[in-house]
Amino acid sequence: MFQSHLRDAAQRVEAHLQTVMASMDDLPVVEAMRYASAGGKRLRAFLVLESARLHGIDPDQAIWPATAIEAIHAYSLVHDDLPCMDDDALRRGLPTVHVKWDECTAVLAGDALHTLGFECVSRPECHPDPAVRAALTVTLARAAGAQGMVLGQALDIAAETAPEPLSLEEITRLQAGKTGALIAWSACVGAVMARADTAPLQRYAEDLGLAFQIADDILDVEGDAAKVGKAVGKDAEAGKATFVSLMGLEGARDRAEALVEDACEALSPYGNKADALREAARFVISRDS
Amino acid sequence: MFQSHLRDAAQRVEAHLQTVMASMDDLPVVEAMRYASAGGKRLRAFLVLESARLHGIDPDQAIWPATAIEAIHAYSLVHDDLPCMDDDALRRGLPTVHVKWDECTAVLAGDALHTLGFECVSRPECHPDPAVRAALTVTLARAAGAQGMVLGQALDIAAETAPEPLSLEEITRLQAGKTGALIAWSACVGAVMARADTAPLQRYAEDLGLAFQIADDILDVEGDAAKVGKAVGKDAEAGKATFVSLMGLEGARDRAEALVEDACEALSPYGNKADALREAARFVISRDS
Repeated sequence: MFQSHLRDAAQRVEAHLQTVMASMDDLPVVEAMRYASAGGKRLRAFLVLESARLHGIDPDQAIWPATAIEAIHAYSLVHDDLPCMDDDALRRGLPTVHVKWDECTAVLAGDALHTLGFECVSRPECHPDPAVRAALTVTLARAAGAQGMVLGQALDIAAETAPEPLSLEEITRLQAGKTGALIAWSACVGAVMARADTAPLQRYAEDLGLAFQIADDILDVEGDAAKVGKAVGKDAEAGKATFVSLMGLEGARDRAEALVEDACEALSPYGNKADALREAARFVISRDS
Repeated sequence: MFQSHLRDAAQRVEAHLQTVMASMDDLPVVEAMRYASAGGKRLRAFLVLESARLHGIDPDQAIWPATAIEAIHAYSLVHDDLPCMDDDALRRGLPTVHVKWDECTAVLAGDALHTLGFECVSRPECHPDPAVRAALTVTLARAAGAQGMVLGQALDIAAETAPEPLSLEEITRLQAGKTGALIAWSACVGAVMARADTAPLQRYAEDLGLAFQIADDILDVEGDAAKVGKAVGKDAEAGKATFVSLMGLEGARDRAEALVEDACEALSPYGNKADALREAARFVISRDS
């Protein structure tokens, strides 16, 4: 069931991304925006659509924050892959934007996807109540900015030249910013749109985000580059502290499983209606890419 | 009078930028954000504060969009200066961010300033009516994105490899995106916040934006690098079409003056109350930096 929900979310957000970019000029930067925002697991879009469904939000409204988060996620990947950042040539099994075009196009396409994300949550079609749109916007900005995702990135860079490898506490804070903040925003969207309590989804998402990153670190050690769609083994090679280096492979697996248990438990106020989100949590630690 | 208004706007927005960044972690990326958003003429902030004053908006609210537009403007400069873009080592007379730190820090600091701009216009302190905040956000996104500022940038890059230099019509469209869109947003803020007609300020701003860019092209030919604070003569050297190359120095000056006349005329519904904006228009074509 979950796999078909995920595929459905992916198809819907893919189509909507193409629609919102349809009227843009036919320029390399716009082609690169389309290329960079195509494909991927669409886990964040799925979380948005599913948390919206849980709260009875119209799917034609929910598609806007789903598109927004995928645009922001795509921008972050394009900039992360740049030679001056992670210098990755491969993403989702395809050449990265700066390889296929050039660095300048990658910087600009990332910038335009970044702006597009904010446009999607502030457009009137997203929700009839402007207070909801303003709430989605301000929370998205906090999740993406210098106290969220960019903070995580900055801590990651600082770690590269730090005299000591990071502690478990430090790496947890880093990852809470780098991947956790956007995942938490995605999972809470439905509650924000329905003006309901975000606490259960917030707890679910914090567990999920951390489990996701632990699984990523496990994949970096055990994964198959062909399936993962990007280079593996880079962290160990660079001598970076990861959840695996700090907890061991078994310790990391156990921790991820405990987090998924807690994530599922957090959804109890929703009963069976939240089963797709529970499956998503299990998927996150069992995926091979 | 105008110079003191501009200085006052600059001081207020400078102080407010420091306040909104005060709680951020002490990291190179955050230092770079502060560095990149310090200084400058603050013309955009001035336009925001002045158009807000014209419409009786509380200055404590108007400071938020003023800070937003300066954060967005600063992000665009940091990314523009990157080696893969304009490759500029000097900005406002100081080393650019990638020279003082490195490219990675410049990409991230620009990204975080970009997000900060959207946070500033969606925060509740900006305006009590969330419909106004949502309107400021969506118009800012349109002005900054792939159909506004980034479009201008992309057209500029495309022009570098085009077989023919740009026509006057093409360069006007390019500049309307590259610098015009954010200037127009700034000038219209007061009317948006007061839910008043934006048409007079829109016409004023379109004239002003174009006059500003013509003046920039004139400075690139005639300016003193020490005063301008960045390299001059780059456009002619690169064989790029500019308003000066297309209209001649006298033709460009005449056109800029006619635009300023029309900009001042557009403000007639506001009477004398708009004199500071009229002075701003005259300043834009008489500045030496």
